[in-house]
Amino acid sequence: MKVALAQLNPTIGDFEGNRRLVLAATAQAEAGGAALAIFPELVLCGYPPKDLLERPAFIEAANASLQVLVTALADSGTAVLVGFPERLAATAGHGLSNSAALIDGGRIVHVARKSLLPTYDVFDEWRYFDPATDVAVTPFRGRRLGIAICEDIWNDADFWPHRRYRSDPIEALVKGGADLLINVSASPYTIDKRHLRPRMLAATARRWQRPLLFVNQVGGQDDLVFDGASLAIDATGTIVARGAEHATDLVLVDLAAPTAARLTSEPPGAPGSDELSALAALALGTRDYARRCGFSRALLGLSGGIDSALVAAIAARALGPQNVLGVAMPSRYSSPGSLRDAEALAKNLGIDFTVVSIEPMFAAYLETLAPALEAFASGGTPEAAAAAADLTAQNLQARVRGAILMALSNRQDRLLLSTGNKSEIATGYCTLYGDMAGGLAVISDVPKTLVYRLARALNADARLIPEATLTKAPSAELRPNQTDQDSLPPYDLLDAILEAHLTGGLDLPELVARGFDAAVARDVVRRVQQSEYKRRQMAPGLKITGKSFGPGRRYPIARL
Amino acid sequence: MKVALAQLNPTIGDFEGNRRLVLAATAQAEAGGAALAIFPELVLCGYPPKDLLERPAFIEAANASLQVLVTALADSGTAVLVGFPERLAATAGHGLSNSAALIDGGRIVHVARKSLLPTYDVFDEWRYFDPATDVAVTPFRGRRLGIAICEDIWNDADFWPHRRYRSDPIEALVKGGADLLINVSASPYTIDKRHLRPRMLAATARRWQRPLLFVNQVGGQDDLVFDGASLAIDATGTIVARGAEHATDLVLVDLAAPTAARLTSEPPGAPGSDELSALAALALGTRDYARRCGFSRALLGLSGGIDSALVAAIAARALGPQNVLGVAMPSRYSSPGSLRDAEALAKNLGIDFTVVSIEPMFAAYLETLAPALEAFASGGTPEAAAAAADLTAQNLQARVRGAILMALSNRQDRLLLSTGNKSEIATGYCTLYGDMAGGLAVISDVPKTLVYRLARALNADARLIPEATLTKAPSAELRPNQTDQDSLPPYDLLDAILEAHLTGGLDLPELVARGFDAAVARDVVRRVQQSEYKRRQMAPGLKITGKSFGPGRRYPIARL
Repeated sequence: MKVALAQLNPTIGDFEGNRRLVLAATAQAEAGGAALAIFPELVLCGYPPKDLLERPAFIEAANASLQVLVTALADSGTAVLVGFPERLAATAGHGLSNSAALIDGGRIVHVARKSLLPTYDVFDEWRYFDPATDVAVTPFRGRRLGIAICEDIWNDADFWPHRRYRSDPIEALVKGGADLLINVSASPYTIDKRHLRPRMLAATARRWQRPLLFVNQVGGQDDLVFDGASLAIDATGTIVARGAEHATDLVLVDLAAPTAARLTSEPPGAPGSDELSALAALALGTRDYARRCGFSRALLGLSGGIDSALVAAIAARALGPQNVLGVAMPSRYSSPGSLRDAEALAKNLGIDFTVVSIEPMFAAYLETLAPALEAFASGGTPEAAAAAADLTAQNLQARVRGAILMALSNRQDRLLLSTGNKSEIATGYCTLYGDMAGGLAVISDVPKTLVYRLARALNADARLIPEATLTKAPSAELRPNQTDQDSLPPYDLLDAILEAHLTGGLDLPELVARGFDAAVARDVVRRVQQSEYKRRQMAPGLKITGKSFGPGRRYPIARL
Repeated sequence: MKVALAQLNPTIGDFEGNRRLVLAATAQAEAGGAALAIFPELVLCGYPPKDLLERPAFIEAANASLQVLVTALADSGTAVLVGFPERLAATAGHGLSNSAALIDGGRIVHVARKSLLPTYDVFDEWRYFDPATDVAVTPFRGRRLGIAICEDIWNDADFWPHRRYRSDPIEALVKGGADLLINVSASPYTIDKRHLRPRMLAATARRWQRPLLFVNQVGGQDDLVFDGASLAIDATGTIVARGAEHATDLVLVDLAAPTAARLTSEPPGAPGSDELSALAALALGTRDYARRCGFSRALLGLSGGIDSALVAAIAARALGPQNVLGVAMPSRYSSPGSLRDAEALAKNLGIDFTVVSIEPMFAAYLETLAPALEAFASGGTPEAAAAAADLTAQNLQARVRGAILMALSNRQDRLLLSTGNKSEIATGYCTLYGDMAGGLAVISDVPKTLVYRLARALNADARLIPEATLTKAPSAELRPNQTDQDSLPPYDLLDAILEAHLTGGLDLPELVARGFDAAVARDVVRRVQQSEYKRRQMAPGLKITGKSFGPGRRYPIARL
């Protein structure tokens, strides 16, 4: 028996478009001789639909789309397995299930329902769905399918040192006689997960001695990037086929051999290193966010520094260089090298480039505001007043730049990409409505040390980013001779503390026990806490690590 | 037996401060002869702690605080019931319970655990806690207490047409022999809930023929305002005592009589009408957000319009007029009346007032940006280009104002209050980084029609808001002779559609079926959807209706 893994990129709420994708892939699968084509979780509505799941009209449209699909597949020799939000008759609870329908011969022959509802990090499924309380194996053309939905396969007692849930639907399916395990997923990308996921799935296949087919959504949905990377694994735990990473794909698996063939014209596109994989993820996330928000063009500020250089390169790859505009906005504090580096980068990338001085606006603010700034200030110390005045002037420069970029965005219908990295956003080393302005925060989940690794990986093939940008000391250039390290610890130390604090959940005593300097760690933790209000107002940022800012991280602002 | 309802205002993460509040209230209760003092849900750490609950150090600190409290209460004649996050020994799941400990005679004699974990709207409890699977009645000084935590009492089969949960912990407690029901809560305020909550609780007491004591947290926590309004209800469902609304309180209830006495020096402070209640909620939310973020002073832009007038009045009440600065920022499009009205308002309220013209900066932007704005614009129609240029100019003015206010905020250490109302934020009739700039969006959950009602309620006692502000046509004054109704439907119609769409969950076909004009409804729904990206970046806004923007409303930005 041949099964097609249809790794699609659905759009949330585009029922007609998503259905068209399913039908086209099914036709290809049928031409290839597939008995079955399997599709990602909730493919008919796209994942994650979030609070659209609370809207009766949305659920109705999804179920109507399923019926249209069933009718359209009446003559298909290939059965399909598609995810959809299923209305349940229930006297209490949501009355909604995260389900997958097996359609064969023009009718629904089985519905699998999700048992384990992820409600952590970016996931909120308990908010929308009722969990299935049992699972059932379904016969299909001589085999017995054990169909599980995404999280259902992430709770193996042997694999995980600590389990999130008490039950294991996979164990129940195997004990129910399943001879082929199928997992339909919308599993978001992280760099770590590209290693963890195949390892976990292979261990599961091996443990139960069952072949396992895993199909995953691909594409960017706001903060999340889905990487595809579908898998066919044999009963010994050997991976026999892989879907493309960060691209749509259709993989035909022959369970008898087992061997696989690729039915899509797209290249396999295995990015290789983690750095190339992360770059591909960021480009995919940028491309899909832009096009789904109706933008074909983008712009960003080019400071001559490494962050904006990296974002410009990602944007050029995502949208085409001809659709990207880089704007240098020098001030009295900009070094001559900065403008030169920015221009060289734009030339290397082939993007449009322009220069707008911030000086006329900055000077107008300083002059016009001078009386009001002092008139109602409180009577602090002269040092505090000087620090406040300095901060005010620095932020004003950043906000003039933000307003310039937004004006160009408004006038030219371009998506503004913000260029802050994770290390500075974590510590609040950024200006709200200034450099934080934008529709998408492309590298907000990329720590500064990883920014350098990604930039070097980019430069390995072609020298896109000027050498000076890679080697000079990072600086915001908001006052004379400023460098980031005037305010922040060295980036390798900062990033290590941030990783332990943000992702590892460690607080001050535990950080000190890990060997970090107490004063440095205290300062970093304080900065993270005190800049929560800035992150609350940041643009969506593409998630590529285990814990990013955005919907997956929820902290109070006002607290002790 | 006398029981004290201790309606406290804890600060999230302030274990020592919260414990001090508990001990002080217990001493007062003991002096009043109380056998028991009951405190709000999670009072030791404050509610909602959000992802702090995922941090081991936070849970450890909360449990250490409980032990300190137990020791401190060794000689107390009054038992206490306090909420805390309880670490559970568990082989799977969170290993954490939303619990309340009954402390008597220097030891914990009972722990009640929450069964129903709200995971909807602003609530995410399934993200953090394991639910209790059974409940137990506990004997206490001759009575049998049925202790339930917040949501546990919100699932009565007789009261609700549709139940969220299958089980009812109250029913289980009554069947287990409870003769006194106690509910410890952190139940956020909405205008509707101030009527619904007493009605629901009275119905529950009546149904089970048991007296019911309800104690609720008070105070502002980011977006949420907790209103207190604790209740003592007798076994017939009659309310015998009420805690203050929007203020801390300590109410002593004699279960034998039943009668109640107030042990606090604060006035009872029953605001009366819904309008006065909403104003008190907004003032409380503003006051607590400011002080918990370390601000004693605030500022806001005063346009001469009704929204900023209302916010200024709320801020003056929350922080004292001497701590509020109003800034008028006229432009070439401002009417002379606007400046006059803004100044009159400031005088009426007794707040500081200053004027900063936006013209020098606006002119500098237009001149400096002119070449770049046109250089890389796409070749659209002349009409589209003119519309984009107009939008660009309007937004620039708003952003100059935003930058002026942020500069004053930076220099003078004042919290910037943004003044957008719910109707304009819903429809995107607002400028990101412009009038949306600020640390707290005070009236972002107040529809325009309610803005007028609140303003008139304010003016009933004293004519604070100038008559012209109340009567003139609303205008953003960003181009000549502009009024809001050039772009938006009349506000009474708009607000009715928004209420049905946002809170009621109705989409276009259902809105039309309700009798709304199809073209108008389509335009409103489209505006709401297309401005999701703006709201993603808005400041926290105080919730006073059933569905506000912010953490309780989660929609994808990029979608069809």
